[in-house]
Amino acid sequence: MQDCIFCKIAAGEIPSHKIYEDESVFAFLDINPVNLGHALVIPKEHHKNLLDTPPELACKLISVVQKIAPAAIKAVGADSFNLGVNTGTSAGQVIPHTHFHVIPRHESDGHKPWASKEVTEDELKAAAEKIKKEL
Amino acid sequence: MQDCIFCKIAAGEIPSHKIYEDESVFAFLDINPVNLGHALVIPKEHHKNLLDTPPELACKLISVVQKIAPAAIKAVGADSFNLGVNTGTSAGQVIPHTHFHVIPRHESDGHKPWASKEVTEDELKAAAEKIKKEL
Repeated sequence: MQDCIFCKIAAGEIPSHKIYEDESVFAFLDINPVNLGHALVIPKEHHKNLLDTPPELACKLISVVQKIAPAAIKAVGADSFNLGVNTGTSAGQVIPHTHFHVIPRHESDGHKPWASKEVTEDELKAAAEKIKKEL
Repeated sequence: MQDCIFCKIAAGEIPSHKIYEDESVFAFLDINPVNLGHALVIPKEHHKNLLDTPPELACKLISVVQKIAPAAIKAVGADSFNLGVNTGTSAGQVIPHTHFHVIPRHESDGHKPWASKEVTEDELKAAAEKIKKEL
């Protein structure tokens, strides 16, 4: 899509630290990494987020994550990783082109999981019922 | 697997707030949610993390995420969501059975993205080269 920075990166029109490419998927390093080795895995085709991405393409993205994550972990001497897909602006999605974050993690690297909210059993039960109705 | 709490939940041996089930995937609400509606999508088969999960099963998990995320968002009045897959203990994985977190998000719900690390162009370039060698 015109004016989409990730479309341009995938097309090679904007330079990137590319680590992987096949017919439908492109992966490169995030220039503002949470940790060194933080990679972004994107479809070459423009889809604005995970919900707009065809399931077979989402499959390809996750299989590329399974391929590059062990390489990224090894390359930077990490021992684990987070996969993160922010879908929508309130979820922290900045570029409206589907991207999977692969973030190598080290013991004591300072990043903390989000705090939990206090919820009651009744609230959980009601939420589960509502979700099932929406499915 | 014996003694795996998620295997027992998927088998119905431990009660849960189930929202979805098919022949290979099970989804239920996290009892310590980041936000109400926070769901966990797991394979019924035991695999300790995303890297140990067969690609075709990872595909099924992501396609179920695409199905339940809009329902969870709508049910709790959220407007976006994060998909998160913590892989390994340093990445915050607590239960060694693959699970995809689906976290509904609201504007100003207080959860903040992790801070970036300062890295140089040379460090990015070197990391990309190392990752490509490991692929």
